[in-house]
Amino acid sequence: MKNTQLNLGLIGVGRIGKVHGEHLSYRIPRAKLTAISDVNLEEAKSVGGRLGIGKIEADYHALMNDPDIDAVVICSPTDMHATMIEEAAAAGKHIFCEKPIARTLREIDKALDAVERAGIKLQIGFNRRFDANFDRVRRAILEGEVGEPHLLHIISRDPGPPPIEYIKVSGGIFLDMTIHDFDMARFLTGDDVEEIYAAGAVRVDPAIGEAGDLDTALVTLKFKNGVLGVIDNSRKAVYGYDQRVEVLGSAGGAVVSNNHPNTTVISDATSVRRDLPLNFFMDRYLDSFLVEMKAFVDAVLDDAPIPVTGVDGRAAVALGIAARRSYEENRPVRLEEIEGK
Amino acid sequence: MKNTQLNLGLIGVGRIGKVHGEHLSYRIPRAKLTAISDVNLEEAKSVGGRLGIGKIEADYHALMNDPDIDAVVICSPTDMHATMIEEAAAAGKHIFCEKPIARTLREIDKALDAVERAGIKLQIGFNRRFDANFDRVRRAILEGEVGEPHLLHIISRDPGPPPIEYIKVSGGIFLDMTIHDFDMARFLTGDDVEEIYAAGAVRVDPAIGEAGDLDTALVTLKFKNGVLGVIDNSRKAVYGYDQRVEVLGSAGGAVVSNNHPNTTVISDATSVRRDLPLNFFMDRYLDSFLVEMKAFVDAVLDDAPIPVTGVDGRAAVALGIAARRSYEENRPVRLEEIEGK
Amino acid sequence: MKNTQLNLGLIGVGRIGKVHGEHLSYRIPRAKLTAISDVNLEEAKSVGGRLGIGKIEADYHALMNDPDIDAVVICSPTDMHATMIEEAAAAGKHIFCEKPIARTLREIDKALDAVERAGIKLQIGFNRRFDANFDRVRRAILEGEVGEPHLLHIISRDPGPPPIEYIKVSGGIFLDMTIHDFDMARFLTGDDVEEIYAAGAVRVDPAIGEAGDLDTALVTLKFKNGVLGVIDNSRKAVYGYDQRVEVLGSAGGAVVSNNHPNTTVISDATSVRRDLPLNFFMDRYLDSFLVEMKAFVDAVLDDAPIPVTGVDGRAAVALGIAARRSYEENRPVRLEEIEGK
Amino acid sequence: MKNTQLNLGLIGVGRIGKVHGEHLSYRIPRAKLTAISDVNLEEAKSVGGRLGIGKIEADYHALMNDPDIDAVVICSPTDMHATMIEEAAAAGKHIFCEKPIARTLREIDKALDAVERAGIKLQIGFNRRFDANFDRVRRAILEGEVGEPHLLHIISRDPGPPPIEYIKVSGGIFLDMTIHDFDMARFLTGDDVEEIYAAGAVRVDPAIGEAGDLDTALVTLKFKNGVLGVIDNSRKAVYGYDQRVEVLGSAGGAVVSNNHPNTTVISDATSVRRDLPLNFFMDRYLDSFLVEMKAFVDAVLDDAPIPVTGVDGRAAVALGIAARRSYEENRPVRLEEIEGK
Repeated sequence: MKNTQLNLGLIGVGRIGKVHGEHLSYRIPRAKLTAISDVNLEEAKSVGGRLGIGKIEADYHALMNDPDIDAVVICSPTDMHATMIEEAAAAGKHIFCEKPIARTLREIDKALDAVERAGIKLQIGFNRRFDANFDRVRRAILEGEVGEPHLLHIISRDPGPPPIEYIKVSGGIFLDMTIHDFDMARFLTGDDVEEIYAAGAVRVDPAIGEAGDLDTALVTLKFKNGVLGVIDNSRKAVYGYDQRVEVLGSAGGAVVSNNHPNTTVISDATSVRRDLPLNFFMDRYLDSFLVEMKAFVDAVLDDAPIPVTGVDGRAAVALGIAARRSYEENRPVRLEEIEGK
Repeated sequence: MKNTQLNLGLIGVGRIGKVHGEHLSYRIPRAKLTAISDVNLEEAKSVGGRLGIGKIEADYHALMNDPDIDAVVICSPTDMHATMIEEAAAAGKHIFCEKPIARTLREIDKALDAVERAGIKLQIGFNRRFDANFDRVRRAILEGEVGEPHLLHIISRDPGPPPIEYIKVSGGIFLDMTIHDFDMARFLTGDDVEEIYAAGAVRVDPAIGEAGDLDTALVTLKFKNGVLGVIDNSRKAVYGYDQRVEVLGSAGGAVVSNNHPNTTVISDATSVRRDLPLNFFMDRYLDSFLVEMKAFVDAVLDDAPIPVTGVDGRAAVALGIAARRSYEENRPVRLEEIEGK
Repeated sequence: MKNTQLNLGLIGVGRIGKVHGEHLSYRIPRAKLTAISDVNLEEAKSVGGRLGIGKIEADYHALMNDPDIDAVVICSPTDMHATMIEEAAAAGKHIFCEKPIARTLREIDKALDAVERAGIKLQIGFNRRFDANFDRVRRAILEGEVGEPHLLHIISRDPGPPPIEYIKVSGGIFLDMTIHDFDMARFLTGDDVEEIYAAGAVRVDPAIGEAGDLDTALVTLKFKNGVLGVIDNSRKAVYGYDQRVEVLGSAGGAVVSNNHPNTTVISDATSVRRDLPLNFFMDRYLDSFLVEMKAFVDAVLDDAPIPVTGVDGRAAVALGIAARRSYEENRPVRLEEIEGK
Repeated sequence: MKNTQLNLGLIGVGRIGKVHGEHLSYRIPRAKLTAISDVNLEEAKSVGGRLGIGKIEADYHALMNDPDIDAVVICSPTDMHATMIEEAAAAGKHIFCEKPIARTLREIDKALDAVERAGIKLQIGFNRRFDANFDRVRRAILEGEVGEPHLLHIISRDPGPPPIEYIKVSGGIFLDMTIHDFDMARFLTGDDVEEIYAAGAVRVDPAIGEAGDLDTALVTLKFKNGVLGVIDNSRKAVYGYDQRVEVLGSAGGAVVSNNHPNTTVISDATSVRRDLPLNFFMDRYLDSFLVEMKAFVDAVLDDAPIPVTGVDGRAAVALGIAARRSYEENRPVRLEEIEGK
């Protein structure tokens, strides 16, 4: 684009939509948020009023059809993502879409085809790539500080499980929770997974098992380049939101620890202790949401490569599907087995 | 005040003025920045344009005289602070003023008298009180986690000295740099200093000594309640901005370490290492600037006590004056000795 | 036993034999080392002379037949362990034996039968159980500090691979290296493994692959009580001997980090760093060798339960055999599959 | 000396004498402990029996007069040190003597004169120099890792005060406790103190004040080479034995933290915590006692320079005397003022 500022429309002003809206309005000088839509028009008006947005709609098509809008930010429920991507692509809008694109590869492939035909840019909202800790590990690998990767660990635990009603429609732990870690694994190694083995258990809450899901998992990944990786998931770490990675390479290792609200350490007659890690994903990853959106705006305005592509979005879903099959059949599953599903 | 939103005018849009301006415009819902002034009108227009401010002036009196403005934020050079406080007080505006109020107790007392007569609220910009690390130590003391304080350490080192031209007009290390630590010492202990002993040296750059100043100091504080404290200052810590405190009390200790840009630790064949602490005071203390301004806005709107008062601003300057005398005469100086100077 | 001191004979004075010899001679008051044997008589004389031992033999049967010896410490090569255990049991000696008992379950079962028939005590040299870090994790589990275990991580990496000649006769990474971690997994969880899945790779040195072995592995463990665990092994962590564990439980988590030669942290213009972890297993685990031997001496003298039994020694070997099969067949292997092999 | 082994006699088998005795007997191959004396002959026999020592005496003169003894280790009460040094020097024995040499410079000078006349070697028991943490800081300075020193912190706090009866005869906090830190300050900087300022308080226990002593102190040191240093002492840190130092130099900083019994960190719903630091000086500094004694034995056998000399022992006492005067007169005291006292 030749423009110096990108006009954006925001579709959906739920929790994550509000964050993107505020960032686009106040904290990204090259961005201009000009329109908002939400089926809940009152909520759209409330958010739009606070951010000083002129155009507020209940129907997102009004944004798709607005010639002044260069790009849309899709924060609707997951089952709308693929359709909206296709419509936005047809309208020639660049797209930032929250993950996952869809829960089947068939739907994803249809959406990505539309994007490719339209020649527009699509970025998927894997915000953790833009977190300072994980980005530092990626740089350590890219710049040779740890040499060639051999082993990868991802520990990703929630402070507590979501409501059972959510669990039931979540698509299961591998598509709902591990999906972030699958993307992180591909991001850090810069490679694709060839085979996956998922061990799972219900340890946190029997109701999760009754709903047909798992709350505890260890997923082994074999990458094409020979790296071995493991993802550790739990729906409940009582001490907070536990988000760590670790890489061992031929020349060294890189280890991420959690973010805490302060660095103060208190020693008393009993222990040496500090406050718990940040407990809420929005606090923990707030900066990363800003950085990812800046990256999207820059990539569109500068016609530069998108940092998280549709291919990345697809790969994470494919891994989620493969993990589920591996768990169900208790055997290693090759990624090629689930192609086209 | 009965208002739900506070109208503010910003005087001075240098480095710190810009930060306050952005926070007031975008990040403090109860605040409304309505006017900006700066002797550099072009700069004021540039900042005001970006923030969407209607009223932009070269002469700050236009803000003092504006009946729609409830409070002013004074970010002008130090030698204007006292006069502006007096004028704002006379105009009935509440005041947030950057530190120090002035460099003599006489000027400060005159300004504080004006504030008291006018019955308006004055907050001094000791932002570090609002930092999450130091605030946690203060809470550890208030809530009895460390018992009654016995010993206090403050380590406060800059990543590098300012230009010699600045040093020459800075008022000296004790009023320019240690002043923050004097306030921190009073904040943490909740007490006043009775006697001070300052040891100083020129270790970083002989030119600082030639300019009549010091670049390295150890200041011993004896508090009224019997606590002993020491402040360690250096104009140059090559590893970054070093900002730590430590308290020993009858029931435990609290220790603050530095803030780093990420938590990633890299081990290679040579060492186990991490990236340097945040190097720039604006990065390190960005959150604290926001929290202090929110606190000011809340205190005015809710007619609640101001968290950093004129008395606090005065005490830190008195300590700076006493420290300089102690250094010059190489003896402990009681604070009562420098009263009225 | 009614004795107040235990008379011991030491069989084999290689690297680990020397350590046990010194501990028994000088640092365990309830122990008295009275005899040493080694096929290398010169070496036996050299060690025995330094420790002031009266009886020094080339043939270990002289120790087995010595009525004044209550217990033998077997530090011979692995392929002698089972036979020596049987002979010592037949002679009524209590036995401390280095790991592994043997490399087949058949041999192990024969030796354990002999021990049971003789009614003597047998302790296997899984010294890591006696390390202060891991013992603290075990206590955290036993005392409920972390609640019921859900997930277990063991990271166990050597600073560099042994010579290829050693690799060829080592029994493979799972029996040579992971065996310690199998025991640690059982120790920490207090439970047995039901199923195992081993992913392996040759990442460190192709020559290791040519010798038919692996140098990098991720082993997934499913315990009978539902805990999921993973063991991460590498023959080469350039930053040193990497020995960590981590447990997540229903009430919290416990994480072990490495031991360093000092706590000094150095910050310069480049990084904040510390010296590498202890690099040599003998430095890292020296204390644990002393504690395990004290525990053996105490258990015999006080007729108390042995802390690491023959059953423990057998279970670790069974896991090594199962891991190898899992790797070769690339599928999860149930432990019951390899019984009797 | 041409000998390959040093014959030593140990005078006094109290707490520290026992430690040295065990090290000399078992853990220093170049040393041979041949005789022990203690006015409590039963205790001497008990220790000597355990260590297998042939010669056990009530009167230490028997050791002084024994021609087979090359060196004596003086672990008697402080008021005997100077006399014993003189006698041992006269007998041509090399001397390891616990600190302090004496509590007056006059006595010390007399003893050091005797040593010089006799041409024997004298090492003073400032064991902390041989601790791995502090030694690492010293090396960081010597090897230029932190550049030229600017600022020094020593934090040295006991887990609890000794009995009041001990306080009364201890010589006061500066000679009893700070003396170790004075030596550490000189060791780390490699320089002498020119002026000292001591602030003190009674915060821990009023009974200590009633006994004429202090329990809390902050001592400022000005070194000849311009370095500024501060020592923080407390008789009571409830969280354990707190032993840290920190140096800021022109090229970086070095910071020591405490030693803990394990590295395990436990996170639960309340905090992230670890076990308290080692609580007892004998646990904390056990290794340093061994290293210092090895250094003494090596220096004598190899006719190499003694690492902690009589001059070092004298300097620490001089600083203790000066600190007390500074506290009493509440003014900085130059070291030259207390010469000859």
